[in-house]
Amino acid sequence: MSAAKLIALDWGSTRLRAFLLGDGGEVLQTRQSNDGAATLKGADAYAAALAALVGDWRAEHPALKLLACGMVGSQYGWREAPYVRCPADAAALAAQLLTLDDQLGIVPGLVDDAAQPDVMRGEETQIVGALALHPELAEEACLVLPGTHSKWARVKAGRVTGFATHMTGELFALLRQHSVLNRLMPADGSSPASPEAFLKGVEAAKEDGGLGHQLFAVRTLGLFKQLSAEQLPDYLSGLLIGHELASELKGDVPRVALIGDPALCARYALALTHLGQPAPLLLDNTAPAGLWALAQTTSLI
Amino acid sequence: MSAAKLIALDWGSTRLRAFLLGDGGEVLQTRQSNDGAATLKGADAYAAALAALVGDWRAEHPALKLLACGMVGSQYGWREAPYVRCPADAAALAAQLLTLDDQLGIVPGLVDDAAQPDVMRGEETQIVGALALHPELAEEACLVLPGTHSKWARVKAGRVTGFATHMTGELFALLRQHSVLNRLMPADGSSPASPEAFLKGVEAAKEDGGLGHQLFAVRTLGLFKQLSAEQLPDYLSGLLIGHELASELKGDVPRVALIGDPALCARYALALTHLGQPAPLLLDNTAPAGLWALAQTTSLI
Repeated sequence: MSAAKLIALDWGSTRLRAFLLGDGGEVLQTRQSNDGAATLKGADAYAAALAALVGDWRAEHPALKLLACGMVGSQYGWREAPYVRCPADAAALAAQLLTLDDQLGIVPGLVDDAAQPDVMRGEETQIVGALALHPELAEEACLVLPGTHSKWARVKAGRVTGFATHMTGELFALLRQHSVLNRLMPADGSSPASPEAFLKGVEAAKEDGGLGHQLFAVRTLGLFKQLSAEQLPDYLSGLLIGHELASELKGDVPRVALIGDPALCARYALALTHLGQPAPLLLDNTAPAGLWALAQTTSLI
Repeated sequence: MSAAKLIALDWGSTRLRAFLLGDGGEVLQTRQSNDGAATLKGADAYAAALAALVGDWRAEHPALKLLACGMVGSQYGWREAPYVRCPADAAALAAQLLTLDDQLGIVPGLVDDAAQPDVMRGEETQIVGALALHPELAEEACLVLPGTHSKWARVKAGRVTGFATHMTGELFALLRQHSVLNRLMPADGSSPASPEAFLKGVEAAKEDGGLGHQLFAVRTLGLFKQLSAEQLPDYLSGLLIGHELASELKGDVPRVALIGDPALCARYALALTHLGQPAPLLLDNTAPAGLWALAQTTSLI
């Protein structure tokens, strides 16, 4: 077993994931807690959450540095890290690393201010990881990170040239849990997935009428029994993801890589191929690889 | 003072509004309670809510009939009234009136099933009322009823030829109260209206990128102080209403009449004229006039 070289932290709004990385960046150990940035207030709370999760790693390897990405660096995080402007590559991110007590580095976020400003924190590191793992993407690719706030980033010649956020996952959760649309649906999680209903939603998103109108069909299709209660959440998901894809699949689209939760990525892959796109590359969380790559360009390891 | 002729009930999801109508349909008295259909379960609850609000009217005028419209006739209401298919006029609605105990009539809803089914309950009566008050609209008009679920109905030769629902108001409430977008906003109701921010949202809705993407700008414009916290709710409102208008203002649009809450209608009127439409006709709740018109074509008065 290789020696531990870095404690990598993927510290988002809802979860803290820690990776003990070895010589070549390989993951030696993984842990996670629910101490996401959204639940923590003040530096002491962050320090305590870190000690609770990886205090023993630090005691065992006192010389190890830590590198974190995600909402830990937001203005409500441990300490605010800057935003690096697009176009940007790994070197530009590493150059603006924020360091706390010479022990913990926080990766800056990215801002795309070509039009209205758009921001990411954490995904920039996953993109660096994806490019490290798949160098063939660096020439030109479209990297998609589905989630609460999905990110669509364009990469050219190793740099992120621009990106857009879509609030697809958050809209789904809001409508699923709090809107009139949930009344005809089964309780959360009780329904088997219906790819048929999902693709029906993807198809409906291609029609005229607008999202705010089409959403109402989730109610009426249930009301008139054209979809079963179990199918309605998938239809809603297809409608929302379909709108996201319709916005992003305009013009020439380079090779698409999907990064993140495998079940969610599979859903996007199904919609993409249904719409005539080539099968995308599927990648699981690439944050550890990204943190390793960024650490290599700094003095952290 | 004219004699009481009808007890008209506008019985929606959240409120019950009662109108004691006189000889020519004029409103003699008005009352309202929070006993909306969404809070009531079972016939006894409806009967009790009705007795609590207008029991004295009924005791004083035992011969008076009652006519109700709205969610009181839904499948979760007092008794399910049918949906009449578009195209439909007042006579078609009156012909399918549901009557309870020969005392209370419930107006049917409307369904437009030309594409995916769309439904309304209550708004059909407001449309009948608008046409009764403004006969010049009957030839051809676009009647807009903004709200939680905004309705856009086309009228031609006195009939509703079709309509579409937009979940604009519900999306606003969900995003305002429950989403990440609310974090930078002031507490509900504490901000003076900003027509400037509202119209900035209306303008943004004309751009590419899709609603799910544009919504995220409500966060970033706040983050980068391009809009103040007080302006963000109005920007969000403009974005959502702008998308609704963009969907509905395609092709030739006949005269537009806005029906409903004056403050909300003023907001839609501002957006419409900003987008180059003629100033719309503004009408307050036309349900009493609609119920009176429908009662006249039945045996209720």
